[in-house]
Amino acid sequence: MRVIHSAKSMQETALGFKRQSKSIAFVPTMGFLHQGHISLVHHARQAVGKDGIVVLSIYVNPTQFGPNEDLSKYPRDFERDSSLCQEAGVDIIFAPDDAQMYGNRDSFSTFVVEEKLSVGMEGSSRPTHFRGVTTVVAKLFNLVLPDLAIFGAKDYQQAAVVERMVHDLNFPVTISVAPTVREQDGLAMSSRNKYLSADERQQATILWKMLQHAIVRVSAQAVRSAVLLNELEEKLASCPSAKLDYIEFFDPETFHPVSEVKKGMQMAVAVLMGKTRLIDNIRL
Amino acid sequence: MRVIHSAKSMQETALGFKRQSKSIAFVPTMGFLHQGHISLVHHARQAVGKDGIVVLSIYVNPTQFGPNEDLSKYPRDFERDSSLCQEAGVDIIFAPDDAQMYGNRDSFSTFVVEEKLSVGMEGSSRPTHFRGVTTVVAKLFNLVLPDLAIFGAKDYQQAAVVERMVHDLNFPVTISVAPTVREQDGLAMSSRNKYLSADERQQATILWKMLQHAIVRVSAQAVRSAVLLNELEEKLASCPSAKLDYIEFFDPETFHPVSEVKKGMQMAVAVLMGKTRLIDNIRL
Repeated sequence: MRVIHSAKSMQETALGFKRQSKSIAFVPTMGFLHQGHISLVHHARQAVGKDGIVVLSIYVNPTQFGPNEDLSKYPRDFERDSSLCQEAGVDIIFAPDDAQMYGNRDSFSTFVVEEKLSVGMEGSSRPTHFRGVTTVVAKLFNLVLPDLAIFGAKDYQQAAVVERMVHDLNFPVTISVAPTVREQDGLAMSSRNKYLSADERQQATILWKMLQHAIVRVSAQAVRSAVLLNELEEKLASCPSAKLDYIEFFDPETFHPVSEVKKGMQMAVAVLMGKTRLIDNIRL
Repeated sequence: MRVIHSAKSMQETALGFKRQSKSIAFVPTMGFLHQGHISLVHHARQAVGKDGIVVLSIYVNPTQFGPNEDLSKYPRDFERDSSLCQEAGVDIIFAPDDAQMYGNRDSFSTFVVEEKLSVGMEGSSRPTHFRGVTTVVAKLFNLVLPDLAIFGAKDYQQAAVVERMVHDLNFPVTISVAPTVREQDGLAMSSRNKYLSADERQQATILWKMLQHAIVRVSAQAVRSAVLLNELEEKLASCPSAKLDYIEFFDPETFHPVSEVKKGMQMAVAVLMGKTRLIDNIRL
């Protein structure tokens, strides 16, 4: 396994693989890896086979954090990440720093913006978030030159926004979305779970319980979204540390909100658990 | 010479060349080719040699035209363009239509925006212009996958904005800017010159005369920009069909306007000649 810190070396290495007709599968991450990330690596390996190259990037991208968010305290542990990658069969870790990615921030002036799917939910709660995501993903795609990139379904809106970007800007990259990996009690794995106190960690299962409640409720027949929302808010009220950010029911393709919730629709939820923001989603 | 209309075929063809380690040089145009474009093709051929591939695109990109601009009447002559390309040694003409490039415009939602160099001059006179340019150039780069792309110096700001985009988003593309080709009387070649009446065509040499005047004035010593601006406006007043859009003196790298104009600075001018907008620029 090789670790590359320089953007230029990463691109030259990738161009070299291209000349050898080697397939590249790419897993972009912000590090502090968990089993969710590792499952993406396994998907990547399966897609390109043993002759292909699996690249995992570790970069806590500042442009996707808002001014009052957790950029500075976002958990980092390169050594642990590195051994997890080695174990999982990653070929290259690309771990640039901010200078490699944005140079002098004052003279960085180009952004990729998606203006439809990115507007609601995370885009509404975190106004500059997706602009940072699409910009850094475009940069990473141009540096890693993957044939395939794998994203986790936990960030459903992110995956959809990236897919739209790839389609609209014609990146020669296939996007694959791999299922959310969950703890035994249903909590979606996330690097941010580390922020939770023991008590908050227990309450955090409420997100999974809300998703399950909705699945059961729509399994027989459609439900008015206002009714379902009400039921879910009542469930959440049982958690003293939880504060609702949003619950949305929407068309999984267009992201248009629906007033009648039925099977096949997507549900997404964001909750502030103490100071930690948790998100989850499911196809109903 | 091959003509490709489909975006997908263009990308597959380019990926095929990549696997063969062939270099690709790319000349993006809006068609209605003139000697300026052909000089870009010659630069492209020289750069990649006889084993390389020269791709020229012909696409009148709607997203870089404002609502009251000349999109619908922009001159088109594919047959003439095609024989000029054949003669100049182009390997592939990529000529997509709007459906190939933007599909259903309602569901197209990703744009590339440059927010510093694109603000003044053309960006100020044509507010959505550069967003259209950077978006379509990003798309074309992803479809044609060039090693090298050649732009004309007549559109100085456009070349700078594209260079900045390539740098910021890490496109694996080298940008080369080739000198403006001029008519015998100094008028910069442009497809839009076709719009000019005989009388306007004669008056149009004023742009070149203004650039020359500035060169002479700063050759010995620096001049206050307000003074020089005044002199140039007086010159322009001699043309009854001409209306000034802007004259700018600026640092060629940062695009910051300068109050003392001296050698090495850039000057750009935009004039409405009758209904035809003409631009030109020069390094002083």
